[in-house]
Amino acid sequence: MKHILLLGAGRSASVLIAYLLQNAVKQNWTLTIGDISVTHLEETLVGRDYVNAVIFDVFDEMQRTSEVAKADLVISLLPAAFHIQVALECLKQHKNMITASYVSPEIQALHEKAETEGLTFMMECGLDPGIDHMSAMQVIHHIKESGGHIFSFKSYTGGLMAPESDTNPWNYKITWNPRNVVLAGQGTAKYLELSRYKYIPYHRLFSRTETFNVLDYGEFEGYANRDSLSYREPYGLQKIDTILRGTFRRKGYSEAWNALVQLGMTDDTYKLENSATMTYAEFTAAYLPAGNEALPLAERTAGYLGFSPESDTIFKLSWLGLFSDETIGLENASPAQVVEKMLVEKWKLSPGDKDMIVMQHIFDYELQGQKKRLTSSMVVLGEDEVRTAMAKTVGLPVGIAAKLMLQGEITEKGVVIPTKGAIYGPILRELKEHGIHFIEEVTPLEN
Amino acid sequence: MKHILLLGAGRSASVLIAYLLQNAVKQNWTLTIGDISVTHLEETLVGRDYVNAVIFDVFDEMQRTSEVAKADLVISLLPAAFHIQVALECLKQHKNMITASYVSPEIQALHEKAETEGLTFMMECGLDPGIDHMSAMQVIHHIKESGGHIFSFKSYTGGLMAPESDTNPWNYKITWNPRNVVLAGQGTAKYLELSRYKYIPYHRLFSRTETFNVLDYGEFEGYANRDSLSYREPYGLQKIDTILRGTFRRKGYSEAWNALVQLGMTDDTYKLENSATMTYAEFTAAYLPAGNEALPLAERTAGYLGFSPESDTIFKLSWLGLFSDETIGLENASPAQVVEKMLVEKWKLSPGDKDMIVMQHIFDYELQGQKKRLTSSMVVLGEDEVRTAMAKTVGLPVGIAAKLMLQGEITEKGVVIPTKGAIYGPILRELKEHGIHFIEEVTPLEN
Repeated sequence: MKHILLLGAGRSASVLIAYLLQNAVKQNWTLTIGDISVTHLEETLVGRDYVNAVIFDVFDEMQRTSEVAKADLVISLLPAAFHIQVALECLKQHKNMITASYVSPEIQALHEKAETEGLTFMMECGLDPGIDHMSAMQVIHHIKESGGHIFSFKSYTGGLMAPESDTNPWNYKITWNPRNVVLAGQGTAKYLELSRYKYIPYHRLFSRTETFNVLDYGEFEGYANRDSLSYREPYGLQKIDTILRGTFRRKGYSEAWNALVQLGMTDDTYKLENSATMTYAEFTAAYLPAGNEALPLAERTAGYLGFSPESDTIFKLSWLGLFSDETIGLENASPAQVVEKMLVEKWKLSPGDKDMIVMQHIFDYELQGQKKRLTSSMVVLGEDEVRTAMAKTVGLPVGIAAKLMLQGEITEKGVVIPTKGAIYGPILRELKEHGIHFIEEVTPLEN
Repeated sequence: MKHILLLGAGRSASVLIAYLLQNAVKQNWTLTIGDISVTHLEETLVGRDYVNAVIFDVFDEMQRTSEVAKADLVISLLPAAFHIQVALECLKQHKNMITASYVSPEIQALHEKAETEGLTFMMECGLDPGIDHMSAMQVIHHIKESGGHIFSFKSYTGGLMAPESDTNPWNYKITWNPRNVVLAGQGTAKYLELSRYKYIPYHRLFSRTETFNVLDYGEFEGYANRDSLSYREPYGLQKIDTILRGTFRRKGYSEAWNALVQLGMTDDTYKLENSATMTYAEFTAAYLPAGNEALPLAERTAGYLGFSPESDTIFKLSWLGLFSDETIGLENASPAQVVEKMLVEKWKLSPGDKDMIVMQHIFDYELQGQKKRLTSSMVVLGEDEVRTAMAKTVGLPVGIAAKLMLQGEITEKGVVIPTKGAIYGPILRELKEHGIHFIEEVTPLEN
């Protein structure tokens, strides 16, 4: 009998919980699910005596101590900032841990202690980070073992809408934290191209996209993520000439989003003077120079940004409500918060909407004197509003890793990410059984 | 006999020191000048027994206590962050204080205590802030007393080069902290225009300039400062429709500076990967997309930014050294630090160079049913490398305020800025004797 403590039972945990429940009897598991609210779980858990749900507060030391004490393995899907509390408790009580979040410096600092104690803190084991590492490393190891040399690696991931639900002019709806959607890309994007370091400031990021085709799903545009350089070392690609990681959106999204960036509307560093009483149209006008007030606002905005008033981008802005006379009604809001309010209303999922995760890696390599390109693509579609593509691709790798860890199949110790074959091999194999798999295509590269 | 303690004897203190020495005998003053280095003062002070210089460390509590104890008035021209140490000491020992820096929140917090103690902490008594307040308030009070209503106020200041020394393509040389020159304008500019709040993000700031003529000195372009709104209350302009404060540069500067901003080179938030070994050309190329490497770098840069390779702006960038194969040679530098290194070399003052301070206020007001514009302009030229326009316009108002305070002419208590006639009146009158004065012009305004 093994006991699992799962902390965090939000939307993206649905598929993980289902996976753990499906495996519990066969694997001889019991399960405690802790979250600040667990009422939504009642229906799922009824009649299953091997699982219980508790209202859990990670800062309640007594509760944290007693729940972790009972566990053989702790899974944290809590907000990333809380993982450190869980990790410290696991270290104290000698427990293994799994999360789907990036290794923070605080977690990394526990590596040696965890290793000495013989513990595994498996981080970055969801989608992105997670499946991205596993699928990329499988290709990288395969090419290297064949004697090939990878000189370029580009990789993009996007959380988008399945074609049938892709029904608004932005081809985008909110399937994760809306605040992160607004702030996406802030900072400077760093990457390496043709052996040169490249830097893209935020105000240029959305105008420097590249376009890709993914399987039969048409065109996507990718913009660069903040730090692509840090992937060289964990991926063993220290001698690579080009490395770029990025985010996928549907064609046209970036141009329109860039309009908001150019206006200055995605800024979260100051508060507007009168956000409660102003209208969206007044909000927009606040970013335009005075003059031409007689012209329609859409036309003034188009002129300022260098678009035609009939352009797709101005249509997208208009559809979003940027020129509307509706009152914002948010007290003391930053521009980013105003935009977030608009997005949450306009980019809302409709009942029955299905999401879609798209990931593509493009490796250029030389093998036996020939230059080739290997494109590895994954598209995962949501099944319904609970079994979303996001919940599947985050939850299943975590669940499978939990099974492997409890079976003693994962022997790597310390703070670990799934870049080694012993870990990603069995996880990718089982993901395939769940319909999550990559399609590879190899084409010759002209010099 | 009154004793003055002057803290801070850097370049901008030269004229203040001369003023204090000139007045000392007649006014029956003695003077102590404290700075981390005072060797440069020896020549000036020789043979004057009423003044001494000491190596002074504001964080040396014993020294701070004993020097402040001897003083009747403390003047601080130390870096702005250190004023709070001086102010706390002055409060403790019941001394008046003068600075030429903005009131920080920490200093503002001392207002009531200082007022209760009957002390005057006169802040913002230099050029900008300082002369700007005094000259604007004189006009504002005058218009209001005549029964006029001011509906628009724009005000610009620039620290530039006198025409005879204005010898480089940027029409700019470094006369103050070069780091501040690089970071100028970062953040969001906020102002009010035609009763609408306006916000300009940094990446648009230098493309939203207005052009002005100042006296016989030709055209200047002004870009908006960070926060114009905060001036409404101290200036008593709560009901104004338009208020904008800004910075003057010579025509063409902003377009070229904006090229650096657009590239992303003024960012101080991250370090370049290889700043020690890369060349300036490689630095520039790091901000361009890959491709077209066969073209000359100036042409690639021009194309990316939407300029002609023959444009003045590309010429300015080239003159600055942005396309040069010289090695940067700065360890672990941010892009802003690389730019600063370039500017310090290229925008260096030559021997004999004279600087120029330009200030212009534009008031639009209604008086007896007529709309009018009052333009108030000041140009101050440097006399030599010591008596620079900057040193005169910062130092003289401080010196005059010191004299008034020691004569008991300043009765306002607490943390004070020079916005009242009792203070700015005598200061502006004496500044005029030193050739620092405003020329006013009133023209009718078409509706």
